[in-house]
Amino acid sequence: MTLVRADGQQVATSIAESVLAGPGLGEFHSWFTSMASVSFMDATVIPLTALDGWAGDFDTGNISHHTGKFFSVEGVAVDIPDGPVTTWTQPIINQPEIGILGILVKRFNGVLHFLMQAKVEPGNANGLQLSPTVQATRSNYTQVHKGKAVPYLDYFRDTAQHHVITDVRQSEQGSWFYQKRNRNMVVEVAEDVAVLDGFMWLTLGQIHRLLAVDDLVNMDARTVLACLPFHGSALVSALAPSDDSFRSALVRSCGPEAGSVHGQNEVLRWITDVRSRARVYTSMIPLKDVKHWHNTDGTLSHDSGRFFDLIAVKVEARGREVQQWTQPMIRPSSTGVVAFLVARIGGVLHVLVHALVQPGCMDVAELAPTVQCAPENYADLARPLFLDEVLKSSEVRFDVTLSEEGGRFYQARNRYMIVEVEAGPEHEHPDFRWMTVNQITELLQHSHYVNVEARSLLACLHSLSGPGVTA
Amino acid sequence: MTLVRADGQQVATSIAESVLAGPGLGEFHSWFTSMASVSFMDATVIPLTALDGWAGDFDTGNISHHTGKFFSVEGVAVDIPDGPVTTWTQPIINQPEIGILGILVKRFNGVLHFLMQAKVEPGNANGLQLSPTVQATRSNYTQVHKGKAVPYLDYFRDTAQHHVITDVRQSEQGSWFYQKRNRNMVVEVAEDVAVLDGFMWLTLGQIHRLLAVDDLVNMDARTVLACLPFHGSALVSALAPSDDSFRSALVRSCGPEAGSVHGQNEVLRWITDVRSRARVYTSMIPLKDVKHWHNTDGTLSHDSGRFFDLIAVKVEARGREVQQWTQPMIRPSSTGVVAFLVARIGGVLHVLVHALVQPGCMDVAELAPTVQCAPENYADLARPLFLDEVLKSSEVRFDVTLSEEGGRFYQARNRYMIVEVEAGPEHEHPDFRWMTVNQITELLQHSHYVNVEARSLLACLHSLSGPGVTA
Repeated sequence: MTLVRADGQQVATSIAESVLAGPGLGEFHSWFTSMASVSFMDATVIPLTALDGWAGDFDTGNISHHTGKFFSVEGVAVDIPDGPVTTWTQPIINQPEIGILGILVKRFNGVLHFLMQAKVEPGNANGLQLSPTVQATRSNYTQVHKGKAVPYLDYFRDTAQHHVITDVRQSEQGSWFYQKRNRNMVVEVAEDVAVLDGFMWLTLGQIHRLLAVDDLVNMDARTVLACLPFHGSALVSALAPSDDSFRSALVRSCGPEAGSVHGQNEVLRWITDVRSRARVYTSMIPLKDVKHWHNTDGTLSHDSGRFFDLIAVKVEARGREVQQWTQPMIRPSSTGVVAFLVARIGGVLHVLVHALVQPGCMDVAELAPTVQCAPENYADLARPLFLDEVLKSSEVRFDVTLSEEGGRFYQARNRYMIVEVEAGPEHEHPDFRWMTVNQITELLQHSHYVNVEARSLLACLHSLSGPGVTA
Repeated sequence: MTLVRADGQQVATSIAESVLAGPGLGEFHSWFTSMASVSFMDATVIPLTALDGWAGDFDTGNISHHTGKFFSVEGVAVDIPDGPVTTWTQPIINQPEIGILGILVKRFNGVLHFLMQAKVEPGNANGLQLSPTVQATRSNYTQVHKGKAVPYLDYFRDTAQHHVITDVRQSEQGSWFYQKRNRNMVVEVAEDVAVLDGFMWLTLGQIHRLLAVDDLVNMDARTVLACLPFHGSALVSALAPSDDSFRSALVRSCGPEAGSVHGQNEVLRWITDVRSRARVYTSMIPLKDVKHWHNTDGTLSHDSGRFFDLIAVKVEARGREVQQWTQPMIRPSSTGVVAFLVARIGGVLHVLVHALVQPGCMDVAELAPTVQCAPENYADLARPLFLDEVLKSSEVRFDVTLSEEGGRFYQARNRYMIVEVEAGPEHEHPDFRWMTVNQITELLQHSHYVNVEARSLLACLHSLSGPGVTA
């Protein structure tokens, strides 16, 4: 047997080279426009009672599919004795199946390209978005819906002949999902791959520029990209030593040699401490037992009008094929803010992460963006920490409104922001820590450390590491 | 702010030096013998119906303490469609509180010493065992039992003034506990520490030699020791380059530079794959609904007489103070075997780990020893993989019978074995992988990768890395 002495260096270099590869986006835009002209999906809000194939359980009120597959909507009771709000109940989506979010990659002229899909989802505010090669629940790929086979799925189900770059299970929205996880995969193939209608090979450099467009790169693509072993060595060597730009501080932060304010062992011990210290008790309850939620015309809403509504939609997909179905969805009441405060410390960009307790977390808390909230929910409550610092800053490095997953969430949008500050004593807080990008990337090789909002935003931060050629 | 460029090297060196420090054990043995003469605990089996302060719920039969604290005994239904046994129900202990297992360390003449406790537990086969400085459930240290304060606890509850070497939450027996975790901590203090009666400072070298004694070092001590950042650099430099002994292969395996058969990223992807592939469905059920278990004279047993009994015990502690209480316990039906197959590959010792699905796992499966079973449970079933290879081997490097935790388990003992083999094709299996000690140690910096039996056995394996001076 041969012994392995180090792994990952070559992949990291290839990823960096793909970031630096910058063909124009002309071809992309004409392809995407043509796809948009043949892909339609109309989602009409209907009463929950008009759902077809879904039923509310007589005893619990829980809503589930007649096959017992896909997902169910149940209730959850949350008790966080030390939280700003100590106890509440709410509807929550229970989807125990672990699906696959996968991107296929292949070298063309030595440069890694990512096979992306133009995909419509019922909840998307603007129809078509750029998606991973595959996004499939187990019900999807075991054909519960009796639909056609998921293209390219076999590359992710049988990886023996390929090179697996990333394969890690990560959580999704802990406010709306109960312990939901998906498998985030990136698989490199050497063989020829037929490009089906609706798919296109793009470099990381191209995808990074598309992240600057509102509602274009979807959540599933962002979370998979964030899990890449994104080390910046190759990017660092492209920098002049005297370069003191924001980008150079970011690139240094991505490198495995980046000096950090806190050692990685110290970060791990801090996470242990937060998870041990927090008292969080969650229990699933019947949906009919959620308190302070009311049903108006077949939509379930909080009495305050805040947070989100549980709605039903009737979906009609038109284009090359016609499909029609109904399903429950979550519709947030307002647009959220998802923001990192970042600071240059010793020439290395640091990100202020928040160890955030959420009811759907597998393990108490995960690392979240500095700010993650819907400001309207706080109209008469204490403002979330650092929200005003984000909104009033003049040092905004990234500000793009992006959609959350359109298969479960109806027009759920967040303003993703990266704001630079001077690190100061006001940022010292037991639930917050300055970390380098490389430290976050290391944690992303494991499950359940970094939440989906932070992963999305990390993909956006990565996008600022490239040369920034415009299309 | 100062940037950290690497952490842990100095601690690893100190740990290695403590391994090499070998004062004799004469003083230990006289201390331990004197402690044994003043510490008694009698545990008498009584009917479950005679429990005092504990009650069976009328509807569910679940047994819990009248305070609602400590733990409860409930039922669990397990469905593993692809397992050797596909479906069963059993009693299980539900203890959601996260306790602290902590060892205090301090340098004397520059050498790390560990403050160990001689502690009796009702389930211990032989009374007194060597235990961590602190082992406390949250109910213990919030004084639900109205007993005296736990000595040295404050060092672990407020670490700000000390040096935290290890702080990670780890699982316990997944066959008997439902998602139980404890916080494994090692805290170094610089200040003077008063040594209370029942406590003694020992080097790692001394503790390692005590691991060769049956039923002496308790499970809680073993799991905490296993979580130490045990890198072998300082041990490696003490070796002659031409040394091709078992010990030298082990020491190389502990070093961060050890070449391994599989890269660490590949190991992580394998764990993701096993956890995603395995279909495991567990649900808590009322204790009265477990099937094929019967109650005889107030003891709950499986109809086959195998696995374990749920018993009640009346405990009388005598010595300097008198205490008396009753509690439920799990009594295994026979002594188990917990074994690693190890092999030298390229001069580096590798351990054959098993990704094992257990009903109490937080996340489907954890890395377990090559063999972990009670052979008598398999009298008329297929023999567990590699069990016979372990039992028939003539290359036994470690063979000591050790106790499991005596606070919940009644005379639960396992034969801990380390057996050397030639790595061959018979060891290739989708649920098994050869790993270096260093790779396992890296995973132990995170929660829920390595199960308690593997941690115990890893501490035993560490013990073979020292010079092996006998007392």
